[in-house]
Amino acid sequence: MNNFVFCNPTKIVFGKGQVQQLNSLIPENAKVLITYGGGSIFKNGVMNAVKEELAKSDRKVFEFGGIEPNPKFETLMKAVEIVRKEGIDFLLAVGGGSVMDGTKFIAITAPAKEFYGKEEELLYFGAKGTPVKNVLPLGTVATLPATGSEMNNGGVVTKGTDKMPVFNAGTFPVFSILDPEYTYSLPATQVANGVVDTFVHTVEQYVTYPVDGRFQDRTSEGILQTLIEIGSKTIEDPKDYDSRANLVWCSTMALNGLIGSGVPQDWSVHMIGHEMTALYGIDHAKTLAVVLPAMWRVRKDQKREKLLQYGERIFGITSGSEDERIEAAIVKTEEFFNSLGIKTRLSDYGLKSADIKDILANLEKHKMLALSERGDVDLKVSEQVLKTAL
Amino acid sequence: MNNFVFCNPTKIVFGKGQVQQLNSLIPENAKVLITYGGGSIFKNGVMNAVKEELAKSDRKVFEFGGIEPNPKFETLMKAVEIVRKEGIDFLLAVGGGSVMDGTKFIAITAPAKEFYGKEEELLYFGAKGTPVKNVLPLGTVATLPATGSEMNNGGVVTKGTDKMPVFNAGTFPVFSILDPEYTYSLPATQVANGVVDTFVHTVEQYVTYPVDGRFQDRTSEGILQTLIEIGSKTIEDPKDYDSRANLVWCSTMALNGLIGSGVPQDWSVHMIGHEMTALYGIDHAKTLAVVLPAMWRVRKDQKREKLLQYGERIFGITSGSEDERIEAAIVKTEEFFNSLGIKTRLSDYGLKSADIKDILANLEKHKMLALSERGDVDLKVSEQVLKTAL
Repeated sequence: MNNFVFCNPTKIVFGKGQVQQLNSLIPENAKVLITYGGGSIFKNGVMNAVKEELAKSDRKVFEFGGIEPNPKFETLMKAVEIVRKEGIDFLLAVGGGSVMDGTKFIAITAPAKEFYGKEEELLYFGAKGTPVKNVLPLGTVATLPATGSEMNNGGVVTKGTDKMPVFNAGTFPVFSILDPEYTYSLPATQVANGVVDTFVHTVEQYVTYPVDGRFQDRTSEGILQTLIEIGSKTIEDPKDYDSRANLVWCSTMALNGLIGSGVPQDWSVHMIGHEMTALYGIDHAKTLAVVLPAMWRVRKDQKREKLLQYGERIFGITSGSEDERIEAAIVKTEEFFNSLGIKTRLSDYGLKSADIKDILANLEKHKMLALSERGDVDLKVSEQVLKTAL
Repeated sequence: MNNFVFCNPTKIVFGKGQVQQLNSLIPENAKVLITYGGGSIFKNGVMNAVKEELAKSDRKVFEFGGIEPNPKFETLMKAVEIVRKEGIDFLLAVGGGSVMDGTKFIAITAPAKEFYGKEEELLYFGAKGTPVKNVLPLGTVATLPATGSEMNNGGVVTKGTDKMPVFNAGTFPVFSILDPEYTYSLPATQVANGVVDTFVHTVEQYVTYPVDGRFQDRTSEGILQTLIEIGSKTIEDPKDYDSRANLVWCSTMALNGLIGSGVPQDWSVHMIGHEMTALYGIDHAKTLAVVLPAMWRVRKDQKREKLLQYGERIFGITSGSEDERIEAAIVKTEEFFNSLGIKTRLSDYGLKSADIKDILANLEKHKMLALSERGDVDLKVSEQVLKTAL
């Protein structure tokens, strides 16, 4: 097992009706800015419930809506202005991954005096994190099981065709209210995306190379098995509470640092996928479903032991040569994504061989030249992966 | 899945040589009291390494040794006096579960002005927690994989024949350094105890009744499978780093609140076991190894579904009637404990039928009259369990 540091201070308040805890979770005299997206929270009653709770105290409450999927720097800067002007001291993100991610960027940027006028620089510090101290505290009422943003300190923000990861030590939500019923009204395609997103988050931390991290491996396998069991069910029967609750909890646990502690991590699938979303607007999860099988086919030697373990423990694949078992595991994975209505080829999304050079150019621009758990995914390997995915 | 709140702010610093982080983890100008037990940390070099790190800053450092296994109220009160007299503002527990547990009690008690002169009342608030605010911050350098105290807010403190659980919202360690190499010098019997302790912590949160908590179940099963794989190995070959690292991480994860979130919890085995330790000084883990199989035999109907799941997923037991499969799973569990050198009958520890009434009297005194995930373990059931364990 590798050395690691793990710390995740977010308080999770999980279950039916937990919005009733909201008032006690936010400081009594805070000036609160509620951030949200396209307005679905008005239709499904979530915003009403949130406001009703906040009204139990004398806080001043502001609102900022319109945070889009793949939240844009320019949109978020408008919220930053409000925070600065009104002296907001608590952010409450009500929505899915984009709202939570965007709110983290607001929390970092608004108080960062040293970046006044050059806020876009904060987009480019990558995984090492933005050098801003005393970011604004934030809480979330999460409405989409997918990104894990409700229990980690990262977000992804888009500027033009740059889709950049943004981190800060202080952007773990103080609390996150996860009520599975708040996700019932999601369109089926978003739920399917959430299942695939959670699945790929997990394998990015699991299908690498073995370091005898048994707790980590088995916990990852537990998430994958659960997703396979409940994936179709929770898409087809959105009001089945237990299936949805399992999806919500697995999506949180897949990306809160736990399963990746002490083991190698890949993330090359995500980095290539981000460029496809930035360039063509393909849903994040769908880009992952395209890139993952191709990545595994191209890098099956580097991932051999873990792919065999994955095939055996997740799908019970034990017969055939190693290469046959690996291919069978990849096919099973594709079949699982397909069974959720998610296609797994570039061509399914209208991309052709000629588009690959644009994706590679973006990877080069963003210095994504040594990806994966071994740092061996250079542009040449990325090209091979994309060709394999056609 | 049941509603739950989960929050665990402890920073885990895991792996070889991580004591080198110590200096940066403790506030620069803190007055530190190092707490420890019987002095094994002087023999195995841990105390030297700790002091060397602390000497890199100008802090005033005090020491308090002699915290015994099953730490006593009277001993801990001596440390409380030092804290009050010297104005200590950070506690550093260097040792195993007893040292960490005892240090939590010191952290609660020293600043509790409202309990001056009547500190022993703090022993009797049970799982609802001690009503003390602003407890002292504490960190740990853990040397025994067993109790999970390094990443939770609970401890167990003994006064006479009262062995009482003590909790406080503020006694999560700020950090815990877990270096598996620091556990190499433990006697084999303590390592075996640690394996069994971790195993029983896990099943107290897993073998109850099903609520469709799939992540929780699978994570628990992962811990159990890991313990079965590495248990004997890490006892026989203490310097096998990976086996020991897996034991250390599993023991932490088994009792940090994660696997028990959103699912029923039992703990009746622990409560009965505590009385046996308090009355007869039998090692904590050994009391658990005695009570658990008997508890499962007596309450197999109440735990039927989870016992069958446990038998199938952990030991691959799939044939025979339900009762036969349950009995086979219990026998496999006993065999596992025995394989580690831990006996599983009351008579193995010199206890006889006539002793049972004393254990029951203690349970009654401590109001342990409605134990288990269903509250159905009254004194009559406890008696039946103890008779079954003879």
